[in-house]
Amino acid sequence: MDHTQQLEEMGQKAVRAKYIMQTLSTEKKDKALTMIADAFLTRADEILTANEKDIRAGEANGMHPGLLDRLRLSKDRITAISEGLIQISRLSDPVGEELERFERPNGLRINKVRVPLGVIGIIYESRPNVTADAFGLCFKTGNAVILKGGSDALHSNIAVSKIIRDTLSEAGITQDAIQLIADTDRQVTKEFMKMSGYVDVLIPRGGAGLIRTVVENSTIPVIETGTGNCHIYIDEDADINKAIPIIINAKTQRIGVCNACESLVVHEKIADRLLSPLADALREKNVEMRGDARIKERISDCIDAAEQDYGTEYLDYILSMKTVDSIEEAIGHINRYSTGHSDAIMTENKEHAALFLAQIDSACVYVNASTRFTDGFEFGFGAEIGISTQKLHARGPMGLKELTSYKYTIIGNGQIRP
Amino acid sequence: MDHTQQLEEMGQKAVRAKYIMQTLSTEKKDKALTMIADAFLTRADEILTANEKDIRAGEANGMHPGLLDRLRLSKDRITAISEGLIQISRLSDPVGEELERFERPNGLRINKVRVPLGVIGIIYESRPNVTADAFGLCFKTGNAVILKGGSDALHSNIAVSKIIRDTLSEAGITQDAIQLIADTDRQVTKEFMKMSGYVDVLIPRGGAGLIRTVVENSTIPVIETGTGNCHIYIDEDADINKAIPIIINAKTQRIGVCNACESLVVHEKIADRLLSPLADALREKNVEMRGDARIKERISDCIDAAEQDYGTEYLDYILSMKTVDSIEEAIGHINRYSTGHSDAIMTENKEHAALFLAQIDSACVYVNASTRFTDGFEFGFGAEIGISTQKLHARGPMGLKELTSYKYTIIGNGQIRP
Repeated sequence: MDHTQQLEEMGQKAVRAKYIMQTLSTEKKDKALTMIADAFLTRADEILTANEKDIRAGEANGMHPGLLDRLRLSKDRITAISEGLIQISRLSDPVGEELERFERPNGLRINKVRVPLGVIGIIYESRPNVTADAFGLCFKTGNAVILKGGSDALHSNIAVSKIIRDTLSEAGITQDAIQLIADTDRQVTKEFMKMSGYVDVLIPRGGAGLIRTVVENSTIPVIETGTGNCHIYIDEDADINKAIPIIINAKTQRIGVCNACESLVVHEKIADRLLSPLADALREKNVEMRGDARIKERISDCIDAAEQDYGTEYLDYILSMKTVDSIEEAIGHINRYSTGHSDAIMTENKEHAALFLAQIDSACVYVNASTRFTDGFEFGFGAEIGISTQKLHARGPMGLKELTSYKYTIIGNGQIRP
Repeated sequence: MDHTQQLEEMGQKAVRAKYIMQTLSTEKKDKALTMIADAFLTRADEILTANEKDIRAGEANGMHPGLLDRLRLSKDRITAISEGLIQISRLSDPVGEELERFERPNGLRINKVRVPLGVIGIIYESRPNVTADAFGLCFKTGNAVILKGGSDALHSNIAVSKIIRDTLSEAGITQDAIQLIADTDRQVTKEFMKMSGYVDVLIPRGGAGLIRTVVENSTIPVIETGTGNCHIYIDEDADINKAIPIIINAKTQRIGVCNACESLVVHEKIADRLLSPLADALREKNVEMRGDARIKERISDCIDAAEQDYGTEYLDYILSMKTVDSIEEAIGHINRYSTGHSDAIMTENKEHAALFLAQIDSACVYVNASTRFTDGFEFGFGAEIGISTQKLHARGPMGLKELTSYKYTIIGNGQIRP
């Protein structure tokens, strides 16, 4: 059987599964999630053995230590994955929620009801925990899922999905609630992105390159997640004692994440007071500073920022810095270079705060807080499948509700259109 | 200036316009809409003169009479377009609506606020009324719009958009709230679909071919609208006196529309009672019947339905018909062949109705009513930009709310992530 046939067959199985999934009771889904969580603990050795193969292959291929770390599983990490599923089982089930109900003058009774999306495709890189995590969120919301993980994590992903499928069988639920594309041929991934006849939504989880490839090739509706070139603007009326800890937190608390701060925009009138203590704090964390001429005048070890620095998501101990003469200039700069993820203003001026909130065209716009809070857990959603940077369907942190759609049910008693 | 440069420039203008649009007051937008509605009446001759050019070119090119009718404007049609804008001005403005508000334990105050989508691209066929209509809906919701209409309607579209742009200037609003791509080269349309750096959402309005082209080529998030292979299932427990008028209404009240019925699914146990009077009613409307063997046994002039008939949106006086032995079989058949637009069950059996509502995976699922009600006006939305047949963002009739996104605003007082 060739690639195309295999994918077709997976698509057909997923569609059959979605019709079963959409009518599963919350109780049955939650029971299955806890059984799977248990199975991860009792069968942890299977996962570790498979993961060891991936790690050895990675080491042999000279994989970057940071990537190896993401790929590596341990008893503790498996326990965390298991606990993640338990947490998902405890969240309330959004499926079936009545969103609206209205009656028309002709007597038609219309209900808008939350339903699963159907079949969700997820393409991700080499973090085997995503396999369990993404499955858990999609399963809780009544969706069938087809996963395409990074080839570096293939053995781990196969082990994780096998345990899930075995346990679904024990729970009396179709195994095809989860299917893993185990073919590592890149052509298969490209074909997968064209399966709009079977897959309702495609969610890429990973770096900017992966997301671009998906957006350019998919005929399935895509939810873009991830890339974050996040800004902090320090207004002339900022409180420096709040601003500096926030900047340090947003830049350095965790550097490789999409809600980390990559660029500062500094009002010229506060530059003299701000930049010296800020540079001290950044140096202490070994952050490389790249700024314009007016920044460099004030920070001797700041290097030149090229135009492209302002558009770069470093995911590293590097910060671009730019001065402006007005809040309007700051807003214009940020709207130009931001990826629409998270941007913040530091100010004690309420009018400036309101202007920034209204005019910055990003998913999350902050006043006097760290951009690092853009996160499903920090928002209290109890779960997160990703951070959407597009305007369609969902924006910002995506929890369970964002993995659902709705439909209208209309009850009549013989109405026809005049 | 070549195509690419022209499109780039339009994209840049649209982005500048969107930042202005998103902060316009409802009052200012409504005032502009009524001024434009007036201008259509006072400058109707300009539109009619331009439309006459399109009509003559269409006739010379042997355009189909049905298409010529869609293309043709008259004083009455222009009055209707003008009244449409007045109606839009009277609808309530969804922008700025607070969707959620919550406070986190760390004191962060999070608001979820409805905002415009930003820049909306609309690609449509040769109906010049769409130019005004789509602009009105996008403008009311604070979006900048780039329109690409059918080349057959080019002169009409230029006239309509010129009147809108002139009047926007008079109202002190950026003309670039609406831009029309007047280049008829197909390559330009393809390039337009790749402008994801400027355009937030692309909405194709037209036939299945147009929509497929957009889905296959666009890198901009698309809302699929339109195609409707709508079914009516006549359950064994149907009331024939309700069912027959509904079938006739859904099939023949207007044949060229996406919510018309294209296929009947008939329970074997009701076939003897239903089919004879139904066939009489369908013959009276000159509807060609195409059925399976059990239908043909009962209707002498019914012709053979090929497999592909069940997947065809005829938009014509043709109806496919299939018998089933159970509601489960009916649901399976409909979920297989439906385009996910609108499907109905005729039954007096509440359990069957509930099963059908739960398991049919379509935007609008009906009990004992005509599928022709799937419409923004019939749903009471006061407007309609199209009927979404996808799961992402919006499903079913799309009114003003469906032309918006949301963002989170987060107010802190120095919070950092621990």
